[in-house]
Amino acid sequence: MIAKTPPPPYYAVIFTSVRTEVSEDYAATAERMVLLAKEQPGYLGHESARDNLGITVSYWDSLAAIQNWKQQAEHLKAQENGRTRYYAAYTTRICLVERDYHFENADSQENIG
Amino acid sequence: MIAKTPPPPYYAVIFTSVRTEVSEDYAATAERMVLLAKEQPGYLGHESARDNLGITVSYWDSLAAIQNWKQQAEHLKAQENGRTRYYAAYTTRICLVERDYHFENADSQENIG
Repeated sequence: MIAKTPPPPYYAVIFTSVRTEVSEDYAATAERMVLLAKEQPGYLGHESARDNLGITVSYWDSLAAIQNWKQQAEHLKAQENGRTRYYAAYTTRICLVERDYHFENADSQENIG
Repeated sequence: MIAKTPPPPYYAVIFTSVRTEVSEDYAATAERMVLLAKEQPGYLGHESARDNLGITVSYWDSLAAIQNWKQQAEHLKAQENGRTRYYAAYTTRICLVERDYHFENADSQENIG
């Protein structure tokens, strides 16, 4: 689903990654991190897609919310596992969303949530 | 590949989409738009992934560069086809990238380019 975010300005964290071949616990960890992120103050939504490359974008109401999430204890451990086991490479980009536009085809079902 | 971008600040356009089932000319159009974007002034790179959701992030050196690309004639036509044929829904977000971090596993090949 496309994330339903409030009117700008708000923040986005773009996490682009290349995986290793280590799959043990990866799916469970990724799923757990999504659940945990949703519980954090200031979380607004997230979007994720992967083929050769993985792109996950999470949306937040402030830089402070992003900083808190980055330092969350269980997330810190997952980040460490990410570097040592799951990811060959990644780039994280912290962005201020200044403008957005949404298009929804009249014939389509709801694709935002 | 993860896009190799210059030190921030720079701009990102996050394009998140849900496809229709229309596939005619879609792949060729998408490929052509990537080639065309690369020729535009101010283009810095792009990243793309799709499973149920598609996320394409393009990077630019200024808002003016993004505006020029949005108005490019062949791109305008592709956008129109996007709305009438290829996409059930999409959201475009224009962002200022304020900070970024890159991680590359010492054992892995170059994953940035």
